[in-house]
Amino acid sequence: MNTVVLESSQYVPLRPKRLGFYKQTFGKRGCIMDKMFLAQGDMVGVSFWLVSIAMVASTVFFLYEGLRVKPQWRLSLLVAGLVTLVAGVHYDYMRDFWVVNQSTPIDYRYIDWLITVPLLMIEFFIILRAVGGAVGAGSFMRLLVGTLVMLVFGYAGEAGLMDYWVGFGLGMIGWAVIIYEIYGGEAGKAAAASSESVQSAFNAMRWIVLVGWAIYPIGYVALSMGGGENGLNIIYNLADFVNKILFGLIIWNLAVKDSG
Amino acid sequence: MNTVVLESSQYVPLRPKRLGFYKQTFGKRGCIMDKMFLAQGDMVGVSFWLVSIAMVASTVFFLYEGLRVKPQWRLSLLVAGLVTLVAGVHYDYMRDFWVVNQSTPIDYRYIDWLITVPLLMIEFFIILRAVGGAVGAGSFMRLLVGTLVMLVFGYAGEAGLMDYWVGFGLGMIGWAVIIYEIYGGEAGKAAAASSESVQSAFNAMRWIVLVGWAIYPIGYVALSMGGGENGLNIIYNLADFVNKILFGLIIWNLAVKDSG
Amino acid sequence: MNTVVLESSQYVPLRPKRLGFYKQTFGKRGCIMDKMFLAQGDMVGVSFWLVSIAMVASTVFFLYEGLRVKPQWRLSLLVAGLVTLVAGVHYDYMRDFWVVNQSTPIDYRYIDWLITVPLLMIEFFIILRAVGGAVGAGSFMRLLVGTLVMLVFGYAGEAGLMDYWVGFGLGMIGWAVIIYEIYGGEAGKAAAASSESVQSAFNAMRWIVLVGWAIYPIGYVALSMGGGENGLNIIYNLADFVNKILFGLIIWNLAVKDSG
Amino acid sequence: MNTVVLESSQYVPLRPKRLGFYKQTFGKRGCIMDKMFLAQGDMVGVSFWLVSIAMVASTVFFLYEGLRVKPQWRLSLLVAGLVTLVAGVHYDYMRDFWVVNQSTPIDYRYIDWLITVPLLMIEFFIILRAVGGAVGAGSFMRLLVGTLVMLVFGYAGEAGLMDYWVGFGLGMIGWAVIIYEIYGGEAGKAAAASSESVQSAFNAMRWIVLVGWAIYPIGYVALSMGGGENGLNIIYNLADFVNKILFGLIIWNLAVKDSG
Amino acid sequence: MNTVVLESSQYVPLRPKRLGFYKQTFGKRGCIMDKMFLAQGDMVGVSFWLVSIAMVASTVFFLYEGLRVKPQWRLSLLVAGLVTLVAGVHYDYMRDFWVVNQSTPIDYRYIDWLITVPLLMIEFFIILRAVGGAVGAGSFMRLLVGTLVMLVFGYAGEAGLMDYWVGFGLGMIGWAVIIYEIYGGEAGKAAAASSESVQSAFNAMRWIVLVGWAIYPIGYVALSMGGGENGLNIIYNLADFVNKILFGLIIWNLAVKDSG
Repeated sequence: MNTVVLESSQYVPLRPKRLGFYKQTFGKRGCIMDKMFLAQGDMVGVSFWLVSIAMVASTVFFLYEGLRVKPQWRLSLLVAGLVTLVAGVHYDYMRDFWVVNQSTPIDYRYIDWLITVPLLMIEFFIILRAVGGAVGAGSFMRLLVGTLVMLVFGYAGEAGLMDYWVGFGLGMIGWAVIIYEIYGGEAGKAAAASSESVQSAFNAMRWIVLVGWAIYPIGYVALSMGGGENGLNIIYNLADFVNKILFGLIIWNLAVKDSG
Repeated sequence: MNTVVLESSQYVPLRPKRLGFYKQTFGKRGCIMDKMFLAQGDMVGVSFWLVSIAMVASTVFFLYEGLRVKPQWRLSLLVAGLVTLVAGVHYDYMRDFWVVNQSTPIDYRYIDWLITVPLLMIEFFIILRAVGGAVGAGSFMRLLVGTLVMLVFGYAGEAGLMDYWVGFGLGMIGWAVIIYEIYGGEAGKAAAASSESVQSAFNAMRWIVLVGWAIYPIGYVALSMGGGENGLNIIYNLADFVNKILFGLIIWNLAVKDSG
Repeated sequence: MNTVVLESSQYVPLRPKRLGFYKQTFGKRGCIMDKMFLAQGDMVGVSFWLVSIAMVASTVFFLYEGLRVKPQWRLSLLVAGLVTLVAGVHYDYMRDFWVVNQSTPIDYRYIDWLITVPLLMIEFFIILRAVGGAVGAGSFMRLLVGTLVMLVFGYAGEAGLMDYWVGFGLGMIGWAVIIYEIYGGEAGKAAAASSESVQSAFNAMRWIVLVGWAIYPIGYVALSMGGGENGLNIIYNLADFVNKILFGLIIWNLAVKDSG
Repeated sequence: MNTVVLESSQYVPLRPKRLGFYKQTFGKRGCIMDKMFLAQGDMVGVSFWLVSIAMVASTVFFLYEGLRVKPQWRLSLLVAGLVTLVAGVHYDYMRDFWVVNQSTPIDYRYIDWLITVPLLMIEFFIILRAVGGAVGAGSFMRLLVGTLVMLVFGYAGEAGLMDYWVGFGLGMIGWAVIIYEIYGGEAGKAAAASSESVQSAFNAMRWIVLVGWAIYPIGYVALSMGGGENGLNIIYNLADFVNKILFGLIIWNLAVKDSG
Repeated sequence: MNTVVLESSQYVPLRPKRLGFYKQTFGKRGCIMDKMFLAQGDMVGVSFWLVSIAMVASTVFFLYEGLRVKPQWRLSLLVAGLVTLVAGVHYDYMRDFWVVNQSTPIDYRYIDWLITVPLLMIEFFIILRAVGGAVGAGSFMRLLVGTLVMLVFGYAGEAGLMDYWVGFGLGMIGWAVIIYEIYGGEAGKAAAASSESVQSAFNAMRWIVLVGWAIYPIGYVALSMGGGENGLNIIYNLADFVNKILFGLIIWNLAVKDSG
């Protein structure tokens, strides 16, 4: 007789810890599939799902509408569509990451922001230019540097590469630079000298950066205040919804009105 | 000798309960694939399948036709296409969920409705505006609130977070608000003052909300009356087909006639 | 010592019955993949494959060409493209179903026909209208009813829900209704009163329904005459190729000539 | 005690024969994925890969450029794009077939040619017509018959359904018919009577059929001359690259010049 | 009693070497999926990810913008889009290759360059022609030969088919040929005789080839200088980002200005 030895390091110990999930993924019939089902009652997973689908629909929306607006708005809607396209890919991964691991996909979040936040900064300038505002390269550089400072230190704090609150504080400084620039700095002044429709659009966008972006630090703080990973992710998902989709819709609304 | 112990918690006990399904998925040849086949005679699965493919075809239809209608109708067809696009993604998941689990994908249903029903409310307003009707923000808010009440309490009742019939009753109130608004309220009056073509379109859409949406509570009630999960899902699938695809086709028909 | 008991109901007995297939799917290198390879010499599988790829190419063809024809033909080509799109999805599933199970995917065939055959009936009317013919709603209803009778009883007979030949006979009646309607009925008369180009197009389409559709009952009968599942599926695949792709090409040819 | 018996027929004996490949597919970390990686140094696999990606890029290229050329060239570029689309799907399968099995995907090659070679014959006629040449249906039939003879006997010889060299010889006859037709037959004469630009285009296409297609029999012969499956597949891949992509680029070049 | 012998050659020894990764891929819940998650802190993986997503977004960007620029720029943007499309497919594979194997995907890198670098050379000529410059076929051949020499010897050196530094040196010669041609050769002279806007564009592109392409040999050298595979891949990824995406953006900027 010759019995096999399967040491625990030699097979994949597929232990379905949460039976509810197990049943949903492998089913009563025991099949393997490439769709990760949400466990029932996983409200954080639901928020990931909602945002991921909304990103897909928004991408189609912005690219489709971009074909009909006036030429100077076309690029703005394309960039809005690229922001939601990139975010859609990341949310697809983040959602499944959450379903499988039930933990925060920190890396994917910051990778996403590293691409989409500079795109949003670029969007600002395209719009200012679309409506005739004049802003210099210096203003653009300050916004970009502010953005990078905000993201790099935020990541360092969350990933544990740096003290949690020091990372938070340094990241906040980056955000403050952006807010100063768009309210009091060169970009703000350029907008103030523009036509009424530009000003209302610029004001709306400023509000997004001031109020919409404020949702991120709330999530950051909420985690340490006992909100846990659940709270953090629901807040971050809401923030991405506001700052990518609603932001894009504001631009779209301005574009359609102006293309009238 | 050193025999391995594979406790039942250490491997995936792939028990093909229903042999018919098993054979179809893994086949006579025992391979693993990423397509979930319907078990023969699974009529509920067939209804999921039909609606999921119809959503895909409808999305292509609405987006393709949207490119040729008059500008003011383009947005209506785009929104109709987004509704079926979003529903198509959810039906793809719900279909496989049903095939694997043979149980109701409650969460996916309500997630889908949470996105698509507000889109349908928005559609109402786009069309009223496309044909020149004037409706205020108050009317829009009432419709949106009615929608949310309808969905939130419906979910609470079905998911067992609340008494089944209390959830049903509260959800019905939300629906009643919508029906009142579009028949007797501000939106209804705005339409009544419009041209003949607007009125016939608005009437058709009202019928959808009155009659088409009535299919959902029928499903809800049927479940408790002994219709079981099979009845519930067939009725819900029919309702989505009517309220998303047929609704979109009514809009398309109006758009094509008006673009003539 | 504690040896594990893996009862045969607890694991997936992956028995590669046909070694040739086994080798092709899992390869000499034993990897798991999501592509199902045809076993060499599986001519039925080849016919599924051919039709599935042809459907994809046809869909691109019809949607691409639809963008350049005269407005009244655009919708016809879109519907032709939707027919091949829907069939393409089903053939993708049916092909893999055949590769895995080596048996007839009855359910998928009838699901496909339940969507595409009514679309073809609608196509008839769009074309008659595109070329100016006048047909009433009664004619349309008769065609639709004939279609449903044909499909429902055909399915009942093949799936064993009804006597094989009774199902066949009743399905034939549905087909006869359609043929009568387009040759002698209102639709036929409407076409007869049209211009020459309409008549030649209508004649071509009638031939498709008379001759092309006759391939289906031949397959049905062939099965019982000893042709087996192989014969049945090759004949059905040929029929779908003729009645979806060639039918669409006739419409395309008419559209291009008329758009000249 | 109750030890399980897993007879060798009851599990999938996943034997990683070539360790290099094994490591690349399952990785150092032992995960299962749906991407088949090329084993390092697998030059035949590299040639499959190159052609599969080139087909994808060519498809996008032809369909994108088809939108801007003169109407009579649009169809030519669409057909060129369909040829590479169909070939792209087949190369995707053939590449993975090679990676997994390290043997010739004969069936997929001939399925591909059964669709794409007739499409190339059709392309010939579309171009002749686009530039005003007049060719009869008889010429078209001769080309189609020549094509089928070439493919059917080639397959019979390679798949072992017929003596290797008899299949080769009969297939060569089919090719000879095509060459005769386009050089000395009706199609050739029609082109000779056309304008200069047609003639240069037609000459280029004739060269493709004479020289480019000659690569296939070289591969066929090379196999038996000791070139083995490696030689055969590299030569066939080169031939498909020349006869599908370069052929399409010749058409595109003519179309762009003529649309100038 | 009859105990099974599973020799180590008969099963897949799925050994999760790095537990962190294991947990992320199979999750706490033990499911199999087709998404490969980055292990946290895998900065090389992050760089692969960033470039792969950026390639997707760039492809959409170039193809979308190509539809609106002046006809002579359309082809340039299409080629820029094809470069990022091809690179996007390869980065998708290279990223997962890295995640699974944590080693350099040499083969995929050179396959990618074998397609995209000649496309970039073609891009040069399209642009020169778009702005009216006249360059001969001889110049084009020299650039193409230089490209091939650069790639073939680079691969030979990296894949160990040739002495590391001999391969490096010979590859450098190919690059030198290209630089000579575009600075002092025929192509350079053709550009010098062009309008101002052509010259500024040509200068920018020359800088890309001189400075951007210099990043590749830096990576090559860095590997042997102790930078290891991590350094090599981060540098190569940066180089591809600069030479494909930024290069494309320069072309786009020129196209938009000229179409203005």
